[in-house]
Amino acid sequence: MNVTLRPINEHNFLDAFHLELAPGQEAFVSSPIRSLAQAYVYRNQCIPFGIYDGDIMVGYVMVIYDYDVPEYDVWHLMIDAQYQHRGFGRAAMEQVLAYIAAKPFGDSPRVAMTCHERNTAALRLYESLGFSPTGMRDGAEVELVRVLP
Amino acid sequence: MNVTLRPINEHNFLDAFHLELAPGQEAFVSSPIRSLAQAYVYRNQCIPFGIYDGDIMVGYVMVIYDYDVPEYDVWHLMIDAQYQHRGFGRAAMEQVLAYIAAKPFGDSPRVAMTCHERNTAALRLYESLGFSPTGMRDGAEVELVRVLP
Repeated sequence: MNVTLRPINEHNFLDAFHLELAPGQEAFVSSPIRSLAQAYVYRNQCIPFGIYDGDIMVGYVMVIYDYDVPEYDVWHLMIDAQYQHRGFGRAAMEQVLAYIAAKPFGDSPRVAMTCHERNTAALRLYESLGFSPTGMRDGAEVELVRVLP
Repeated sequence: MNVTLRPINEHNFLDAFHLELAPGQEAFVSSPIRSLAQAYVYRNQCIPFGIYDGDIMVGYVMVIYDYDVPEYDVWHLMIDAQYQHRGFGRAAMEQVLAYIAAKPFGDSPRVAMTCHERNTAALRLYESLGFSPTGMRDGAEVELVRVLP
């Protein structure tokens, strides 16, 4: 496993369009297409990535900087249905945290994400990576935060 | 009817997400969400618009500049299912042509679009607006071009 993040661009966006959520996960995570539509709107403060294993796009994640808090937010992390349960989610999050640690948009050490309260596998993953629930909620989504060293 | 184009931004993108193609038109036109995902990729050479009647978003269209030809391309024009058959498509195209006439990206007078060969209502509309088939096809899509004065 050699997981890297590569920005979505005109050469790989169709691969992102073809990523599929696993059955049941549609309730938990936006599709990459919908996420990229939001990336257009927030194009000056975000970067959407394909998650690669070697040269195969196996998933998708967006990093967006919220200038108002300020904080880094991780949005719409997903691993394609056929590539799940192999550790790609964890490996991708480690890459995301390394990317954010370089503070590409601004100086905040705060990294936040939300997770559906019933997405227990993802909640366990994020907590094992140092994220803690803040107690804030948005409907069924709970907020998790990690402060970078 | 007072039809205007307004750029998609953080204030109105959810309205664009909620636009719905009429039954059967999914085969002819991309959804605004999918189009906005492409707008992210081509963000330096395109502008997606909401089509408004007064303050109501009734449709969507993207203008993109192809630097290679060069030409202006009109992508993904759609009118929400509940607002069709009222002349909004024609009024929107007139606004699009006025926008392109100001040459916002580059100097080409050529305006191109494609249309599904079975989308006869749209073909008639575009031909009535001065577009002519070029004879080029991409699968079931025929290319139409108009040269601006």
